Amino acid sequence: MIVIMKADATRGQVVNVTARIEQMGCQAHISEGQERTIIGIVGNGRPLDREQLERLDGVDRAVPVLRPFKLSSRDFHPQDTVVPINGIDVGGKRLLIMAGPCAVEDEAQILEAARAVRDAGAHMLRGGAFKPRSSPYSFQGLGEEGLKLLALARQETGLPVVTEVIAPEQVSLVAAYADVLQIGARNMQNYALLHAVGESQRPVLLKRGMMSTVEELLMSAEYILSHGNDRIILCERGIRTFEKYTRNTLDINAVPLLKQLTHLPVIVDPSHATGKWELVSATSLAAVAAGADGLIIEVHPHPEQAMSDGAQSLKPEVFRRLLGQVRAVAQAVGREL
Amino acid sequence: MIVIMKADATRGQVVNVTARIEQMGCQAHISEGQERTIIGIVGNGRPLDREQLERLDGVDRAVPVLRPFKLSSRDFHPQDTVVPINGIDVGGKRLLIMAGPCAVEDEAQILEAARAVRDAGAHMLRGGAFKPRSSPYSFQGLGEEGLKLLALARQETGLPVVTEVIAPEQVSLVAAYADVLQIGARNMQNYALLHAVGESQRPVLLKRGMMSTVEELLMSAEYILSHGNDRIILCERGIRTFEKYTRNTLDINAVPLLKQLTHLPVIVDPSHATGKWELVSATSLAAVAAGADGLIIEVHPHPEQAMSDGAQSLKPEVFRRLLGQVRAVAQAVGREL
Amino acid sequence: MIVIMKADATRGQVVNVTARIEQMGCQAHISEGQERTIIGIVGNGRPLDREQLERLDGVDRAVPVLRPFKLSSRDFHPQDTVVPINGIDVGGKRLLIMAGPCAVEDEAQILEAARAVRDAGAHMLRGGAFKPRSSPYSFQGLGEEGLKLLALARQETGLPVVTEVIAPEQVSLVAAYADVLQIGARNMQNYALLHAVGESQRPVLLKRGMMSTVEELLMSAEYILSHGNDRIILCERGIRTFEKYTRNTLDINAVPLLKQLTHLPVIVDPSHATGKWELVSATSLAAVAAGADGLIIEVHPHPEQAMSDGAQSLKPEVFRRLLGQVRAVAQAVGREL
Amino acid sequence: MIVIMKADATRGQVVNVTARIEQMGCQAHISEGQERTIIGIVGNGRPLDREQLERLDGVDRAVPVLRPFKLSSRDFHPQDTVVPINGIDVGGKRLLIMAGPCAVEDEAQILEAARAVRDAGAHMLRGGAFKPRSSPYSFQGLGEEGLKLLALARQETGLPVVTEVIAPEQVSLVAAYADVLQIGARNMQNYALLHAVGESQRPVLLKRGMMSTVEELLMSAEYILSHGNDRIILCERGIRTFEKYTRNTLDINAVPLLKQLTHLPVIVDPSHATGKWELVSATSLAAVAAGADGLIIEVHPHPEQAMSDGAQSLKPEVFRRLLGQVRAVAQAVGREL
Repeated sequence: MIVIMKADATRGQVVNVTARIEQMGCQAHISEGQERTIIGIVGNGRPLDREQLERLDGVDRAVPVLRPFKLSSRDFHPQDTVVPINGIDVGGKRLLIMAGPCAVEDEAQILEAARAVRDAGAHMLRGGAFKPRSSPYSFQGLGEEGLKLLALARQETGLPVVTEVIAPEQVSLVAAYADVLQIGARNMQNYALLHAVGESQRPVLLKRGMMSTVEELLMSAEYILSHGNDRIILCERGIRTFEKYTRNTLDINAVPLLKQLTHLPVIVDPSHATGKWELVSATSLAAVAAGADGLIIEVHPHPEQAMSDGAQSLKPEVFRRLLGQVRAVAQAVGREL
Repeated sequence: MIVIMKADATRGQVVNVTARIEQMGCQAHISEGQERTIIGIVGNGRPLDREQLERLDGVDRAVPVLRPFKLSSRDFHPQDTVVPINGIDVGGKRLLIMAGPCAVEDEAQILEAARAVRDAGAHMLRGGAFKPRSSPYSFQGLGEEGLKLLALARQETGLPVVTEVIAPEQVSLVAAYADVLQIGARNMQNYALLHAVGESQRPVLLKRGMMSTVEELLMSAEYILSHGNDRIILCERGIRTFEKYTRNTLDINAVPLLKQLTHLPVIVDPSHATGKWELVSATSLAAVAAGADGLIIEVHPHPEQAMSDGAQSLKPEVFRRLLGQVRAVAQAVGREL
Repeated sequence: MIVIMKADATRGQVVNVTARIEQMGCQAHISEGQERTIIGIVGNGRPLDREQLERLDGVDRAVPVLRPFKLSSRDFHPQDTVVPINGIDVGGKRLLIMAGPCAVEDEAQILEAARAVRDAGAHMLRGGAFKPRSSPYSFQGLGEEGLKLLALARQETGLPVVTEVIAPEQVSLVAAYADVLQIGARNMQNYALLHAVGESQRPVLLKRGMMSTVEELLMSAEYILSHGNDRIILCERGIRTFEKYTRNTLDINAVPLLKQLTHLPVIVDPSHATGKWELVSATSLAAVAAGADGLIIEVHPHPEQAMSDGAQSLKPEVFRRLLGQVRAVAQAVGREL
Repeated sequence: MIVIMKADATRGQVVNVTARIEQMGCQAHISEGQERTIIGIVGNGRPLDREQLERLDGVDRAVPVLRPFKLSSRDFHPQDTVVPINGIDVGGKRLLIMAGPCAVEDEAQILEAARAVRDAGAHMLRGGAFKPRSSPYSFQGLGEEGLKLLALARQETGLPVVTEVIAPEQVSLVAAYADVLQIGARNMQNYALLHAVGESQRPVLLKRGMMSTVEELLMSAEYILSHGNDRIILCERGIRTFEKYTRNTLDINAVPLLKQLTHLPVIVDPSHATGKWELVSATSLAAVAAGADGLIIEVHPHPEQAMSDGAQSLKPEVFRRLLGQVRAVAQAVGREL
């Protein structure tokens, strides 16, 4: 941490800040510039509280030197983490493709969807049983019945299953049926839930909040990692901006940025990031070209009858064509499907 | 709902959309413009799924006619809802002032803070026992011990207590100690939690998410109202924007907008909305002038030693001076403290 | 400027950065922390280029110590600047009220509007002759004819006139008719225009860009100040955010923040900041309570016939009532109308 | 346009709105729903003023049926527009690569840069002579001297030149030296400038404002098109969001969205969109995979000495490697370099 004093800070204020730093068990290095005094802090290994320092008289700002995330940081863990799922080392050379409907609606729908995405080349089935919806009047998912149908679809198709968990007390229930636990965008900072999936030791798909920074995403991963669970796949799914023609704005910068900052694998959800099926193919290819380790795509056998997210779901034949293009782009950037 | 067809939509596509609308149990009114065909839908009382309609061939967009919130809407419930707390009808003429530290730290701190805010004129004590923090390495609150200290402070000062609840299974525990349950900004769309506080039948302080629209805030209130619990106080606490000199941007527009859209009382949290104590007084007065029904302000006896949010906490003497100014502005707009 | 080296920076890279700093005519102070090396720069009075430093090998980030604005800074010029207009010292105790229609439409309209706002208590007439419109198909203003009508209205009512100038070559034309030159939000970073109004030595109303930071607003003021023209009134007029129920989001935090950072007066435009006339009164009062030095409000004698911005324009009788409330709030915070 | 009346609108208010619509020369179609009355407007070919309608008593909202852009719309002009530049039909199968330094600094720099980007495979040289900078203390470009150096570099390398024009009165000067006129992000809504480049009949590179929606970008193109100049290349260059680790957020969704909405070619500027050279390669590939018609990339022979934007400039050898990867991704999506 570096403390920048105000232009009119007094000698006494500098002494007081220095005393406070030493009281925290750290060392203070004062350097007096032409206009401002700067105090560098050499720490003792424990995190420093920036706000306490900023409240001291005469202090203009405190600037952190270190990033606040550790276990998820590439500085801390330089080599890529790979998360093995269904024979694919996620984060390795081969891309992971998850696909399926937004929500499990009934047996026929999920089985038809599962077969369609498997036949098209997906490695994993997605489908929501517990649906966080902004309206209490919208379809909230089938709950445990949905989990059972997902398990049935897995049995029929051999595809492992990823599904969302929305409350800490449901983690063990969902983990009994699902291969990967999804933390949705709205729950990225639901810390009780992050602790619970950390403890579960199951692979976790952690979606970025729609208005969360990349740093906050890594801090949330930190909660899971702090339980010794490093089987985490990060997911960029679009952020909220002022642009209104699309549901969200896919932050494609975040893909290479995350690959630089962290060792965890990173996939992209182009369905939520655009909200329009017509934009899903182009952005899927962009994600792969940018270095994503995989994709999670909404596919519905009959999108015009979908109980949620129909507007952003691909029909199976469009999805199949897309995977052909994904394969070509993957090869162009040294990856494979 | 109104369906706007694409410019090149065919006659058959219009027929198909009409058929689908009737299949939903509604009536379709077609009107053919010079360039586009528009289909108005007369509903059957149940919500329509916009996305299903937008997925039909030839459809450009579907535009909702009605707002998606009902129980919280002023159309539905024209007169103001008042929530009685400690002899104040929140949402009536008199303003509610909640104040106290960000977090309960120890007995001495919370008692000192409680006495200070009571003496300055606050009606209610705030203080966090369970703290959602973006970093797992930050102070997470004292938990149940913090709740006990809040109860002790209430006993000592007579001030009722508002404190945050962060997981559904904690609701009954927190409700055993607190007078008002706070849903924090990060949990505004934690629907399991909203259901739980709805069932509790306790007064709820519902903070707007930093990434949430006013409409989404009202939809979250709708979750609580759907359990018959209408003792809800809404709280504007700043939204996330591109501006970096302040922690958040206080959306002052939201105060009169909410008063127009809903019958629920609306208060403002200038501490989180600015993140800087120097800006808290000016924005508190702005909130009252704009029609807010109250304020929730962070006050700490020793902000420079606070374990969280020190930079945005007022010292007791500043808070006391502020309440004098609040009183004057309140009178100027026909309210009282 | 402080340079923070990467965790794995080599000794040679530190030496190289130091050499580069000295080559820039500055001094480098190295301090080696546990995990990172920090290099403080003591400058030579000239601005340093952060990006050059960030491009050097081994550098993680460079952190500026000083704010980039100088002439507009309160550090540089501690006492308030007052801009005298029509007998009011803008930035002093008395508030400045500018009002009038979005655009000058014809003689009858502008005369009716001017008389109405004068009678209600406004000090100055606003009205656009050159209108920057996002669509080339929208009304673009009457041009010089509009300026003449403004001059006529001034003659009839005694109100000085503020109107927008949108191109450098128009500055002298507009200055021939107007008392205050307005730089609109879309032109806040039109530097050729800022230079031109700087040279004009006329009072300038500088509106914040809808997606500009407070720092960028002050940098734009700096362009005008660099020509020795300090007759600048800053205007907060709402920023663009994700919220869709209002046209913009009034950044009320910016009012006390600007008063802290700069010596220039600050007024608020609640009409553009909300886009809805129903929200204009509440936000006007909020602006005054927060410490604004004045208001600029759209008032149209017949808003439902206005050629632009009808939805956000007040009717004269509403405006008159509002000024009564403004007076009360102004007194409550030690100001006067 | 569709007018949605308030829930409590009276019969008289509906009649009044209808009368007003007919007075505008249009026809009104009333349809009464269960809760609201909807009035559809069949127009007369001229644009309707939404705000006038929204100001009428009893009106809740007016919803436009048609997009506000026409000449730039794909509905109006279904086939792709191609802009021929240096033997490349921009908007056709082959990608356009523009590259060069942010600013022209001196003869040696621009010649070295021009040769390097030509040798690496670029088709066009970029370089700023007039630089809009947020600070008046930053390097503002060499002005006409810079234009002459660009012309010299063109003569030496055969590369056509794109450079920014920042004021209407400079258009003819810049057009005397440059092959393509660039409208920078800060000037996207500088309408006087848009008119001037429209009249010039020269090819225009129109960059999206950092605060502008896709619709606003197309409205700005409309200004240029309204002068009969359709040689417009649109450029996505990143938008401003809350994310702070990158300078801007590349809105990759905008690429396929624009290709759907308009017939004009679309290129991407990954340098400004990220602000960090380490992220430029990945996002360049993403842009091509998403369907961009070209790239504009900052390349500087010695980025650590660049007078602006050093942090986001590629070294020539990195740029050369990148073009090899671009070629591979282009082929994977059916394009060529």
